[in-house]
Amino acid sequence: MKHDIVKVLTLAVLMMAALTNVALAADPVKSSKADPLPSWNEGSAKKAIVEFVAKVTKKGSPEFVPVAERIAVFDNDGTLWAEKPMPFQAFFTLDRVKALAPQHPEWQTEEPFASLLKGDPKAALAGGERAVVQLMMATHAGMTTDEFAKIVSDWIATAKHPKTGHLFTEMVYQPMLELLAYLRANGFRTYIVSGGGVEFMRPWTERVYGIPPEQVIGSSIKLKFELRDGKPVLVRLPEINFVDDGPGKPVGIQMQIGRRPIAAFGNSDGDLQMMQWTAAGPGPRFCLYVHHTDAEREWAYDRANIGGLEKGLEEARSRGWTVVDMKADWKRVFPFEKE
Amino acid sequence: MKHDIVKVLTLAVLMMAALTNVALAADPVKSSKADPLPSWNEGSAKKAIVEFVAKVTKKGSPEFVPVAERIAVFDNDGTLWAEKPMPFQAFFTLDRVKALAPQHPEWQTEEPFASLLKGDPKAALAGGERAVVQLMMATHAGMTTDEFAKIVSDWIATAKHPKTGHLFTEMVYQPMLELLAYLRANGFRTYIVSGGGVEFMRPWTERVYGIPPEQVIGSSIKLKFELRDGKPVLVRLPEINFVDDGPGKPVGIQMQIGRRPIAAFGNSDGDLQMMQWTAAGPGPRFCLYVHHTDAEREWAYDRANIGGLEKGLEEARSRGWTVVDMKADWKRVFPFEKE
Repeated sequence: MKHDIVKVLTLAVLMMAALTNVALAADPVKSSKADPLPSWNEGSAKKAIVEFVAKVTKKGSPEFVPVAERIAVFDNDGTLWAEKPMPFQAFFTLDRVKALAPQHPEWQTEEPFASLLKGDPKAALAGGERAVVQLMMATHAGMTTDEFAKIVSDWIATAKHPKTGHLFTEMVYQPMLELLAYLRANGFRTYIVSGGGVEFMRPWTERVYGIPPEQVIGSSIKLKFELRDGKPVLVRLPEINFVDDGPGKPVGIQMQIGRRPIAAFGNSDGDLQMMQWTAAGPGPRFCLYVHHTDAEREWAYDRANIGGLEKGLEEARSRGWTVVDMKADWKRVFPFEKE
Repeated sequence: MKHDIVKVLTLAVLMMAALTNVALAADPVKSSKADPLPSWNEGSAKKAIVEFVAKVTKKGSPEFVPVAERIAVFDNDGTLWAEKPMPFQAFFTLDRVKALAPQHPEWQTEEPFASLLKGDPKAALAGGERAVVQLMMATHAGMTTDEFAKIVSDWIATAKHPKTGHLFTEMVYQPMLELLAYLRANGFRTYIVSGGGVEFMRPWTERVYGIPPEQVIGSSIKLKFELRDGKPVLVRLPEINFVDDGPGKPVGIQMQIGRRPIAAFGNSDGDLQMMQWTAAGPGPRFCLYVHHTDAEREWAYDRANIGGLEKGLEEARSRGWTVVDMKADWKRVFPFEKE
């Protein structure tokens, strides 16, 4: 009997070991019956995503991609969160001008600040790019990186969208949150590659999207190392360092990641070069455009000054890239919508 | 009897499950009896490393650091591989000038190329920084990123150190390879933060150090996105983008990682600001200087033009940072040395 127990125990241990190995090797998403993309309607877009992921994660398949190379890049404004009536960083900029105005009496008469403080942003922006840069530098530079991170964190914790009344961090697309999680569960690293300021995004992207600071690529201003009373700080200088938009996106990707993504997600012509760069690599590739077609639940636009998608849509169609019709493909747009 | 087997099996399954959980949760390094740093002599440096790692990885301890924040940054030249008689990228530059000379007949008379081609690098470098930049741009710019990666890969596969006759990629420090692996086994991400060219390092750092391209930070020249016959390329422009040295190192870290490292490893005054930046964060911190004291197995220097360690050594001593005495602390310097 004692001998039997030893035999049984040995058998059980071997069985368990085998089962454990199977469990560890199995794909957590595939082995689960639950739909990893519940906010996506069944259709060609969802099908294309799932087929691509299945293909590149299937060991032994000719299209298998090792985990180290499973890099997916996402635009932010209009791709992961909304960008209407204007990119959310612009709201931050306006709020900062108002908050800083008491320390700058000269802004009451100096443009573009004066018009802005009088509640006329259109007049403020009449100065074009120069006005925008002036506003950006007055609000984004002159402090240390730690101070700026705190300013952003404080603002994003309470700032609300003027139309929906929801926090800006709630104005994120539920289907894209699911897509990010689905890709990560399949061994992808998910990067943001945005025209927005890199240090405007980093304080909250991990909490909101699950994307850590080192996987955020964005536009930047120059930094300067200084010792202040023996304490090292990085000071944000009023000088543009890098514009991570359009042809800047593949440059930002190469500078920071140093390898070519295999999947790219965007919504505008500003993402086109990132798509082209991603698509031109060898092996399986996936490019997806979010097309804003839902005027009711979100906004419908593709010929806009910001977020315009003309060349991109044309190229997507001619190259067979996936185009998400937001109205038809998304069961739910925002997390706060009722299911 | 049948009932007994079921009971025993159930018990065995429960035991196995418990054991499996323990095995998964256990630290792979600590649970092994093997010394993870066999090329380090017992002494204060090794002790300091092991104590720091134990401290930050001990769950529940007040000095525990979550895996996401376990970031360690390493200088490259003189810290991970040797840098004498000159930084190895300089050998690459000279070899490229020779290889490209047939396409540039004007170099036979133009400085700094003429002196270099006559075998007189000292005369070539008499032009100072301007000469260096000219040589760098002539050899590092003008091609696509893919073409440059291939040039580097081809060169590094065969180029040998003039004194030892070993491949440059064999002139790496065995104790530092063990340290990199030890930190990674304890949940750290290991980054290179080097004054060297980022695209000069990326083609081989994964193979040699286990450090993937996205964890390499370095100096860079500007890149430009272009479509050539419809094919997207990134062209390397003869214009400096970023110098990742001295005060540039904390800037490079902030730009690319966006969080402060908890451990920094260097060997020269060019690493001092990176150390200061690392040391100034909250919670446990670790800074280590490699002091080149071994004229026999390697080189002994700290007052050199390149790799000088004067302020750094002073600051290390006053702040209690760890200083490795290469001669005393390292059992073996290079992997090719007999054990």
